[in-house]
Amino acid sequence: AYHHKKEVNFSDRGMTLEQQINESNQYYLEKGIAVVHKKPTPIQIVKVDYPRRSKAVIKEAYFRQASTTDYNGVYQGFYLDFEAKETRNKTNFPLKNFHEHQIYHLDACLKQAGICFTIIGFTSLKRYFVTPASFVISKWHEKNSSSMTLEEIENNSIEIKSGFHPTLPYLEAVDQFIADRKMNNGK
Amino acid sequence: AYHHKKEVNFSDRGMTLEQQINESNQYYLEKGIAVVHKKPTPIQIVKVDYPRRSKAVIKEAYFRQASTTDYNGVYQGFYLDFEAKETRNKTNFPLKNFHEHQIYHLDACLKQAGICFTIIGFTSLKRYFVTPASFVISKWHEKNSSSMTLEEIENNSIEIKSGFHPTLPYLEAVDQFIADRKMNNGK
Ligand SMILES: [Mg+2]
Ligand SMILES: [Mg+2]
Repeated sequence: AYHHKKEVNFSDRGMTLEQQINESNQYYLEKGIAVVHKKPTPIQIVKVDYPRRSKAVIKEAYFRQASTTDYNGVYQGFYLDFEAKETRNKTNFPLKNFHEHQIYHLDACLKQAGICFTIIGFTSLKRYFVTPASFVISKWHEKNSSSMTLEEIENNSIEIKSGFHPTLPYLEAVDQFIADRKMNNGK
Repeated sequence: AYHHKKEVNFSDRGMTLEQQINESNQYYLEKGIAVVHKKPTPIQIVKVDYPRRSKAVIKEAYFRQASTTDYNGVYQGFYLDFEAKETRNKTNFPLKNFHEHQIYHLDACLKQAGICFTIIGFTSLKRYFVTPASFVISKWHEKNSSSMTLEEIENNSIEIKSGFHPTLPYLEAVDQFIADRKMNNGK
């Protein structure tokens, strides 16, 4: 039987935040727990070659501006939408890491009663926070506010521990958001 | 004041089905009605040039297999997920137009209580149907079934009329699905 020693630290295993989330989404998908995918990078394709006997090759293309966040999907009837961001900072997260279109998109999804958040990774600290979009949006609109302090993030997020299966169990935080919502509006 | 003659036929205006849906999504987004986007085509990028004084150029890339459908988003708290398909056929829609990954994805989203469907356009007839994913999935799994007849589609879909604003008002069909769901399980 499989077991592992409690001392063993699987935490993040050198993966980027996106890799951890992608692996978690794969786990959630395979277990039938949730369907969440990262959106492909939008590309404007200009020139494609179709060589005989082999697959099409894109020869000229350009990156386009995304109009949404990185991830969305469905979990127990709820629409999930989130952006993942990491920083090597140890005391704050600079708001300039968010693009205007991400803030607008999160706001639009919130208005449609989606469950919207960011996953913020402090990679130097190996700490991961699921922060409701409403908090990030309000900070983003705040005058003279260029960052969220770690303390603000601690006070307004659910911290999740990097683990084994899944790597980053962010749905535990989502469960809490859903419970809070049910408490607040009886949905 | 703006008005247009009833005789004028704006119907589809020569647009492809995807163009009609994209324009409708834009309308829904601008009006704050729903947030639905087409997913970018997934691309594997191999080589990128960064010319001085101009933007990055992708010089070698390949199309990757998508793992989801074309569209998803959120509407009044509901997760929407759908695939758009058109045919020039007049009497049936061949099931081979659906890829296995699309069927599996729709099924996985249904299990998470998403509102999942296809928009099928019979372009020669200028008729558009919003067909629940459950019907498409069951036909797809049916032995010896290579297509859905127009009659089957008529009997198992909500037909929508191509119009002006939005071009393809598919949320009218979604409203009906939501009403049916509320009737059936009291959600
Ligand atoms: Mg990101
Ligand atoms: Mg399609």
